[in-house]
Amino acid sequence: MQILTIKAAREKLMELQKKMAAYNHAMGLIYYDGATTAPKDTAANRGVTLSVLSEEVYRLGTSKDTVDLLEFLDSFKDKLPPKEQRMVFLLLKNIRDMQKIPMDEYVAYQELLVKADDVWHRAKEASDFEMFRPLLEQIFETNIRFAGYLAPDKKPYDYWLNEYEDGLNMQICDEFFAKLRSRIVPLLKKISEKPQVDDNIRYGNFPADKQQELSFYLMKTMGLDLGHVGLSTTEHPFTTSLGSHFDERITTHYQEDDFVSSMYSVIHEGGHALYDTGSADDLAYTVLDGGVSMGIHESQSRFYENLIGRSRKFCEFIFPKLAELFPEQMKGRSAEELYRAVNKAEPSLIRTEADEVTYSLHVMVRYEIEKRVMAKELQVKDLPHEWNRLYKEYLGVDVPDDKRGVLQDSHWSGGAIGYFPSYALGSAYGAQFLAKMKESVDVDKCLETGDFGPLNAWNRLHIWQHGCLYKPGELLEQVLGAPFDPEYYIKYLEDKCKDIYGLT
Amino acid sequence: MQILTIKAAREKLMELQKKMAAYNHAMGLIYYDGATTAPKDTAANRGVTLSVLSEEVYRLGTSKDTVDLLEFLDSFKDKLPPKEQRMVFLLLKNIRDMQKIPMDEYVAYQELLVKADDVWHRAKEASDFEMFRPLLEQIFETNIRFAGYLAPDKKPYDYWLNEYEDGLNMQICDEFFAKLRSRIVPLLKKISEKPQVDDNIRYGNFPADKQQELSFYLMKTMGLDLGHVGLSTTEHPFTTSLGSHFDERITTHYQEDDFVSSMYSVIHEGGHALYDTGSADDLAYTVLDGGVSMGIHESQSRFYENLIGRSRKFCEFIFPKLAELFPEQMKGRSAEELYRAVNKAEPSLIRTEADEVTYSLHVMVRYEIEKRVMAKELQVKDLPHEWNRLYKEYLGVDVPDDKRGVLQDSHWSGGAIGYFPSYALGSAYGAQFLAKMKESVDVDKCLETGDFGPLNAWNRLHIWQHGCLYKPGELLEQVLGAPFDPEYYIKYLEDKCKDIYGLT
Repeated sequence: MQILTIKAAREKLMELQKKMAAYNHAMGLIYYDGATTAPKDTAANRGVTLSVLSEEVYRLGTSKDTVDLLEFLDSFKDKLPPKEQRMVFLLLKNIRDMQKIPMDEYVAYQELLVKADDVWHRAKEASDFEMFRPLLEQIFETNIRFAGYLAPDKKPYDYWLNEYEDGLNMQICDEFFAKLRSRIVPLLKKISEKPQVDDNIRYGNFPADKQQELSFYLMKTMGLDLGHVGLSTTEHPFTTSLGSHFDERITTHYQEDDFVSSMYSVIHEGGHALYDTGSADDLAYTVLDGGVSMGIHESQSRFYENLIGRSRKFCEFIFPKLAELFPEQMKGRSAEELYRAVNKAEPSLIRTEADEVTYSLHVMVRYEIEKRVMAKELQVKDLPHEWNRLYKEYLGVDVPDDKRGVLQDSHWSGGAIGYFPSYALGSAYGAQFLAKMKESVDVDKCLETGDFGPLNAWNRLHIWQHGCLYKPGELLEQVLGAPFDPEYYIKYLEDKCKDIYGLT
Repeated sequence: MQILTIKAAREKLMELQKKMAAYNHAMGLIYYDGATTAPKDTAANRGVTLSVLSEEVYRLGTSKDTVDLLEFLDSFKDKLPPKEQRMVFLLLKNIRDMQKIPMDEYVAYQELLVKADDVWHRAKEASDFEMFRPLLEQIFETNIRFAGYLAPDKKPYDYWLNEYEDGLNMQICDEFFAKLRSRIVPLLKKISEKPQVDDNIRYGNFPADKQQELSFYLMKTMGLDLGHVGLSTTEHPFTTSLGSHFDERITTHYQEDDFVSSMYSVIHEGGHALYDTGSADDLAYTVLDGGVSMGIHESQSRFYENLIGRSRKFCEFIFPKLAELFPEQMKGRSAEELYRAVNKAEPSLIRTEADEVTYSLHVMVRYEIEKRVMAKELQVKDLPHEWNRLYKEYLGVDVPDDKRGVLQDSHWSGGAIGYFPSYALGSAYGAQFLAKMKESVDVDKCLETGDFGPLNAWNRLHIWQHGCLYKPGELLEQVLGAPFDPEYYIKYLEDKCKDIYGLT
């Protein structure tokens, strides 16, 4: 390559990342369009485009010019500002990973995922696992094969866990989940001996247009900037950044007989969007834009959804708005009834609608299954059976069909194997963040007036602004001044159950 | 370059076009998202991405590999099938054009258009031409400058007219418009002496959700495949193809006090979508996919909108559906009232809502203005004044504000200078197509039952399937077996006015 000055190379580094952001924008939007707006028979067309664009990205990311540039910068890394050091590190890691995967296999995998997304939607609608099975087999096989290319010395599942949460592996997960299970199962047993919570307040007739009004009210209350954060409806709620944190989209799903489902989806996805849009502006169009890891990301989404959104203070704050939007349904009801209803602990079928106490049991089912399929101890064809068996064992419920069972989540069809543990980890991180936040922020007082400013400022200062400048472990240490400890989370769950169920 | 066999080169030709289609998909979707769904402050982010992607397309389209490939194929063109000959011709033309424009100017122009689209929306909302003026000046300047690069021997406006309609120039337009004007102005005068048509049937209260139901009914009736053609709402209706004719989007705008506006937008845009989706499948992912020219494209959209949609037979067919959707509003009304209302000829302010008789006068105002700005005989700052003066002269109406005047159309903000004459030409082509179609298809009988099959089959056979395999002039000659003659169009307008107004 031609001799570059460090200055010129640093400029080229920014140009490279801007290009990557552009491709991410295009590909993210094509995915988002497929989930929100596209006519139903257009998946094949998206597949053609995505396969071309991912090939272009692959070429861009692994070209000789790019490798030379990054290696040049890496050789002078001590002269770079910390943010640029991290950019070079992440880009080089990405290239070294990419180079290990043959291009045709990479492109074929992208095409597979587009097809799988489409088939999963249809299979779920038809509640027919067999429709989806061949694609899921290929997805698991590809993840095992790619892990073999990427980290031949690691067990495939360890590789992917670590990809979603730098530092994570099966040993840590096993210990974490064992600890949770040892405390949650007895807690659930105690709850089952108490009178059940009446959650009738959430059911009735809640027109989608009124629920949409509620969504926008929640987004504004949370401090989301609606000029940069959009809301759409999809089968399965998600959040995506388009190009940079200046264009963020969240989605929800309205059930007209139960307003609580969408309400907490919006707060959850809104938490992701707060995190992304809270990145420092100088991280835009770089690989540092957005969150650290899936676990930290979920710590924010589940922070707003549960620690904030399901608190008594927030229920008291939001109840008058509900009464205004749904006057008939809320007549004679109270904020306390809402609080109790949204904290009802009860084994159920659907992860995204699970209460906080049983939630991590849902995650454990998925973790167990992924672990065993990735170790080739379990075959994809046996997933429905195994899923149903584990739901019975962990949660005590009978799964009536695949739609409400093994087909309920979109993660596998998107190739995200190893993602689920992040949800449980994120919940646990969040509880410890809240304890730390309360040392300097009067959270209850904020919630009384619906003023999220001080909460958001704390999260922005400690977490959001940094994008993915730090590793999850580093960030946790920095924010908490102590190691991660799941005890905060377990204690939080126990305290809440005591409050709701009068446990002793 | 390495020595290629013709077979290998032909494969590469297809790959190249598939790549281009992918970029078109991405960029088209980003534009579509901006018009339909994106949060309001995200235009700058789209601008960054579009500028990167257009630079990538520019590089792809003008790279040495691409040029070598196409010149190689061109040198063996006699051995290529006609479709591939045409692909090579169009791609080489595009490259030779692209090479004449400095890359930085090309990229800057793409960025300008993104900004202009955003500012035009805001300026229109605020009815403030001054807001938009600096951008429009740059757009006109760039079009003049680019025409100078592309065809230094032509007048700039002649260059752009020919780009939208191969073979067109100011001389042809001047003659065509002079002929139209010489017959339409007297026609309007005669009409003005007759009692006015009562078009009260179109006004009232038509909820957007019911109008949407009507939209889908119209789309199905027209024979659009809803699995491949989507509908959204935008400020200004348009049609776009994403990647290939397998994913087509049309948009409309619902006015709750007037259902006719959206109804005919849907039929108009639906006509574009029928044309695009009617391309032969082997043209997908090639430069031949989609329509011949803007004029032929408008011949199809305006064919369905006017020649079909505003016919008495179609009004009779659609009236029962309107009565079903809007029972209160349609009580005591008749299909004949609808027919008369949608054919009311009356000078007005808004082109897209103009009746057929006055429509080409709206186009003439734009043609006159473009012609003079492109010749530097008129300055952009004087456009509002000149616009209003010409509306008074041609149509006899006073323009109350820029929103309903010079800012009404999106074309200029999108850089489309030289497009407007296509609308009038397309209308005239359509009338001649209909006359020809009636030689073999019983159009009235089709409309009685709402069976568009035979109409669509005729259009598909003669026009749609060919994509842009032929030049507009060649296609017209092939379909009509005679030269284009605006007399068909003028006669059609005169006959309809006789019918509606009882002229003699």
